[in-house]
Amino acid sequence: MARFRPAALDWLRRYDGRTAGADGLAAVIVTIMLVPQSLAYAMLAGLPPAAGLYASILPLIAYAAFGSSRTLAVGPVAVISLMTAAATAEAAAATGIAPAAAALLLAGLSGLMLLAMAALRLGFVANFLSHPVVGGFITASGLLIALGQTGHLLGVSARGDTLPAILTALYDGLLTRGINLPTLVVGGLSLIFLFWCRKRLKPLLVKAGFGPRAADAVAKAAPAVAVLASILAVGQLDLAAAGVKVVGVLPAGLPPLTLPPLDADAVLALLGPAALISLIGFVESISVAQTLAAKRRQRISADAELVGLGAANIAASVTGGYPVTGGFARSVVNFDAGAETPMAGVFTAAGIALAALFLTPAFRDLPQAVLAATIIVAVLSLVDLKAPLRAWAYSRADGIAMAVTILGVLLAGVEAGILAGVIASLALFLRHSARPHMAVVGQVPGSEHFRNVDRHRVAVSDTVLTVRIDESLYFANARALEDRISSLVACRPSLRHVVLMCPAVNLIDLSALESLEAINRRLAEGGISFHLSEVKGPVMDRLARSHFLDELTGRVFLSQHAAMQALDPEMTRAADGLVRDAAS
Amino acid sequence: MARFRPAALDWLRRYDGRTAGADGLAAVIVTIMLVPQSLAYAMLAGLPPAAGLYASILPLIAYAAFGSSRTLAVGPVAVISLMTAAATAEAAAATGIAPAAAALLLAGLSGLMLLAMAALRLGFVANFLSHPVVGGFITASGLLIALGQTGHLLGVSARGDTLPAILTALYDGLLTRGINLPTLVVGGLSLIFLFWCRKRLKPLLVKAGFGPRAADAVAKAAPAVAVLASILAVGQLDLAAAGVKVVGVLPAGLPPLTLPPLDADAVLALLGPAALISLIGFVESISVAQTLAAKRRQRISADAELVGLGAANIAASVTGGYPVTGGFARSVVNFDAGAETPMAGVFTAAGIALAALFLTPAFRDLPQAVLAATIIVAVLSLVDLKAPLRAWAYSRADGIAMAVTILGVLLAGVEAGILAGVIASLALFLRHSARPHMAVVGQVPGSEHFRNVDRHRVAVSDTVLTVRIDESLYFANARALEDRISSLVACRPSLRHVVLMCPAVNLIDLSALESLEAINRRLAEGGISFHLSEVKGPVMDRLARSHFLDELTGRVFLSQHAAMQALDPEMTRAADGLVRDAAS
Repeated sequence: MARFRPAALDWLRRYDGRTAGADGLAAVIVTIMLVPQSLAYAMLAGLPPAAGLYASILPLIAYAAFGSSRTLAVGPVAVISLMTAAATAEAAAATGIAPAAAALLLAGLSGLMLLAMAALRLGFVANFLSHPVVGGFITASGLLIALGQTGHLLGVSARGDTLPAILTALYDGLLTRGINLPTLVVGGLSLIFLFWCRKRLKPLLVKAGFGPRAADAVAKAAPAVAVLASILAVGQLDLAAAGVKVVGVLPAGLPPLTLPPLDADAVLALLGPAALISLIGFVESISVAQTLAAKRRQRISADAELVGLGAANIAASVTGGYPVTGGFARSVVNFDAGAETPMAGVFTAAGIALAALFLTPAFRDLPQAVLAATIIVAVLSLVDLKAPLRAWAYSRADGIAMAVTILGVLLAGVEAGILAGVIASLALFLRHSARPHMAVVGQVPGSEHFRNVDRHRVAVSDTVLTVRIDESLYFANARALEDRISSLVACRPSLRHVVLMCPAVNLIDLSALESLEAINRRLAEGGISFHLSEVKGPVMDRLARSHFLDELTGRVFLSQHAAMQALDPEMTRAADGLVRDAAS
Repeated sequence: MARFRPAALDWLRRYDGRTAGADGLAAVIVTIMLVPQSLAYAMLAGLPPAAGLYASILPLIAYAAFGSSRTLAVGPVAVISLMTAAATAEAAAATGIAPAAAALLLAGLSGLMLLAMAALRLGFVANFLSHPVVGGFITASGLLIALGQTGHLLGVSARGDTLPAILTALYDGLLTRGINLPTLVVGGLSLIFLFWCRKRLKPLLVKAGFGPRAADAVAKAAPAVAVLASILAVGQLDLAAAGVKVVGVLPAGLPPLTLPPLDADAVLALLGPAALISLIGFVESISVAQTLAAKRRQRISADAELVGLGAANIAASVTGGYPVTGGFARSVVNFDAGAETPMAGVFTAAGIALAALFLTPAFRDLPQAVLAATIIVAVLSLVDLKAPLRAWAYSRADGIAMAVTILGVLLAGVEAGILAGVIASLALFLRHSARPHMAVVGQVPGSEHFRNVDRHRVAVSDTVLTVRIDESLYFANARALEDRISSLVACRPSLRHVVLMCPAVNLIDLSALESLEAINRRLAEGGISFHLSEVKGPVMDRLARSHFLDELTGRVFLSQHAAMQALDPEMTRAADGLVRDAAS
C-alpha cells in the first residue's frame, strides 16, 4: 500500500476544457440512464428507492479518485443488488438487524475486504472464479431476477432467493390476490416499449441519420422516457387508486451521513456474503474495465481497481447506500458517449445529486411495474442459455462447472451456487492433473524434435525408451508415473536406458521426488539407467537441493536430442541424416 | 469388478512342500510377535483385548485369498487403532452405541468402501493423501499414542484424541490418584527391556553368530519375552493386589460370529471416520506392499489390494474384530523370516486361533503396563520429528503441508488434522499453478533447442518475441498470461510476432481460451501477429473444436525451431550455423 498512488493524480494534471466538455456530455447521458436504474436496483435489493440514488453519488467520486479505469461507471448493479437482498434478508432473520442497516454494513465490510485484498496483493484470488462459474452465475441470477420482477408486473409479491421459492411465492400471490390488471397494462406496455427500443430503435435511428454511437446512447435512454410517460399516466388516470403500486414519497435532499451499525452478530452473519459480493463485484468490474481499456490501449491495474472499488463501497456505507461495483451497460454508454477521464463519473455524481435534491417529488407517482420492466429488459440481456452447451462442446469440464453453477444458483441460491461452481472447477482441474497424459516419444526425422509415437511418424531406439509426461509431478499423479514406467519397461527386454522427458514438468514435489527415487532404484535393479531431459530451470534448482541427483543412475540432459546423441548415437545420426539427404 | 480374479488362484497352483515350509516358519515368528501386539492394539482402540486376537484370524485369511502382495501381513495396527478409539468414542457419545458394536460397524463400512473404491476404480483418490500429509499424520499420531500409553505406565488413565485432552487427563489422573509405583516398576522395566532389545540385541546376536535376519526376528520377538516374564512376576508377587492393572479374564475359543448393528444414526456418525480409515489404511498398506514387492520384482495391483483389504475388514466385522490393514513392522518380519506366499498369513491366522483357543487363561495376569510399553516402543519408531524440516528444505509447500498436518492432528485430532493437511496440500499446489513461471526464450546456438534468456546464452530475434509458459493454462492463471504479454510487448516497439511456446501446456480451459482470444485481438490491434508452437496433441485437438484457430492471426508451429525458421530465417540461420562452424 505504501507504493500506492491514486490514479487521479495523473489525469488531473493534464485536465483541460476540451476534456471537461467530453466528460460533461457523457455524464448527462449516463445520468439520464442511471436515475431510473438506481431506483429500480434499490427496489431489487429490497431497500428504499432513495438508497439507489445515494449509492450513485459519493461512491462515483471515490472511484474517480482511486480507480485506474478511465471510463468505468460504478453504482448499483443487478446481480449485486440480488445478492444484497438475499444477504440482508438472511441477516435480518438471524439477528433482527433492519435491512437498510444491514446493507450499509455489507457495503462497509465489502469495502474493507477489497482494501485488504489490495494491501495483501490477493487480487489473484478472484481468478479462481473461472469463466464458466462467472458466466453461469450471471445467467442464473439474471433468470432469478427476471422471474422475481415478473411479480411486480402482475401486481403480486414474488420475493425469494431460489427458483422454487420465487415460483412458490408467485403462485401463492396469484392464488390469494390475483393479477392487478392496471399494473399488468402499465408494466406490459413498458416492457414491450423497452424491448422495442433495445432491438429496433437503434437501427431506426441510424437509418434516420444518427451516428451509431449517438443512436445507441439515445436507445439506452429509453427507460427515462418510459419513466416519464408512466408518471404522467399514473397522475392523469389516478392509477394508484386502481391498485398500481408506486414508488411513493422520496426524501428530497443530499445523501444522509450514516454509520453502519457495529453489531457483532450482524457482522458475523454478513462476513460471508460480503466476501462473495467483493469477489463477484471485482471480477465483473475488472472484466468491463479491461475490455474498455483495451479499446483505447490503456492499462488497468488490478490493485488500483481493488482500492477504487473498496473506497466506493466505503463511501456507499457512510452515505446511506449499499454495495456498488462497475456496471457493464452504463460503462459502455459512458465510453461510447465519449467520456475521457473519471471526471465524467464526478459529473454524473453531481447530476444524480441534483436529481436527489430537486426531482424526488416527480418520482412519487412512478409505478414499480415500470422499474420492474427496466430491470427485466436489462438482466435478460445477460442471460445466455446456450453458454453451457458451448462450454461443453469445448471441454466437458467447463460445461459441467457451468451447469453446476447455474443449477446451484437456481436451486440453492447465489452463494451456494457459486461455491459449488468453484469447487467443481477446482475438482475437475485436479482430476485432470491427477491423471496425466504420458506419451512415448521418438525423433521427428530430420529435426531435433521429439513427438508422440502414436501421433507422428518418428524414429525410435531399441535400447532407449523416452517417456514424456505432460503434467507437473505432484502427489496426486506421482504414483501413476511409477505404474506407467513399470508396465512400459516390463514389455521391452532389450531396454538399457529410460529417459523421462520433462518439458511440461513445472513442479516436482516431495511425493513425486520419492516416486522418482523409487523408479530410479527399481530400474537400477533391472540394470537400466534412468535419465532426465529438458528439465526446467526452477525444477532443476529444487532437485539440486535433494540427494536425487547423486543417486540418479543416469544423467540430466539439456535437450532430448542431446540425450539421444549420447545414449543411441547411431539411431540419432540416422534420424538426423534423413532430411539432410532429402535437402541435398 | 467383472474382470477381477483372486490372486490366490495363481500362487496356489504352484504351491509345494518347500514353500509351505518357508511360509510355516515365517508364520511361527509372526504369530509370536502378533499375539501380544493384537492385545495391545485392542487396548489402544478402547476395545476388549480379545477383539485384537479376533481381528488377527479371519481377516488374514480373507486378505490371503484376494490381496496381491505375497508378503503383506494384515491385522490391527497402531494408527488405525487410534482412529478407531476416537471414532467409536464419538459415535458412542452421539448415538449411545456400544464401542465394540461401533467398531464392528466401522470395520464393515470400511470394508464396503474399499470394495466400492475397487469397483469404481477410485483407488487414485488415495493419491490425494500426499507424502507430507501421511508422514505428518503418522508422526503426530505416534506422539499421541505414546503419550496416551504413558498413562498406563504410571497407573492413571490418559484417554483423549488430542494433545491438550491427553495432557489434561494425565494431569488430572496424577493429581487425583497419584502414581502407582508397582505399575511404574513393571512398565518401566518392560520399556527399558524393549528399547534395549530394539537397539542393542540385534548387534549382539549377530556378533554371537546369528544371521542378520534371524537376529532381527529374535529381537522382534522380545515383546513375547516381556509378556511371559511379567505374567510370571504378577502371579508370583501378587502384583494385581498391589494395584497393577491386568488384562483379566479373556474368553477362550474361536472368534464369535457377529453382525454389525444396522443403526442408521450410528452408520451416519461413522461414515466419515470409516472413509478416512479406509484411505489411510489403504495408503499405508499399499506403501508397505510396494516396498516389499519391489525387493523381489513382484507387482502389486492397487485394485487387488482394495479388494483384499475390503474383504479383510468385512471379515473383521463379522468375527468380533475391528478395522485392520497391512502393518509395516509385521510385514517386514514376515518377509525377512522367508514368507513366500500369502499362505504364511493363513498359517499365522491358524497360530492366533490356537492362541485364542488355548492360551487366553495365561494372559489373565498380563499387566496393561507391559502392553503399553510394547505400544510405545513400536510407535516411537514411527515418529520422525525432523521430517518437516527435511520437507521444508526441499520445498516450502511440502514443509508447510506436513507442519499443518502434524499440528492439526496434535491439536484438533486425527480427522481434522488430515483434512487440514489435504486442504493445505491442494491449496499450495493451486497457488503454485496460479502463479505460473513464464520465460522469454532464445535459441541455444548450434542446436534447435530454446531456453530461458535469463539462464542460458541464447540468440534472440528483434522482431519475434517467444514466451514459454511453464504451466497448464486454466482459469486461475490465464489472466497472469495476459498481463505478462501486455507488459512484454509494451517495451518492444520493433516487434512483429509473438510466439507462445506451449511444451508445458497440458490443458487450455475455456477461461484460458478467452484469454488467448483477448491476447490475439489486442496484439492484432497493434499490428503484431500471434503464433503458437509445440502445442501438444490433446491440447490441439481441443483448440480445433473452438473458433480460436480461425481467428488466430498467426500460425501453429510443430516446433519452436520451425517457428523461428519461418518468422526470422536470418537470425535462425545464424544461430544454427554457429556450431557447424565450430564443429568444422
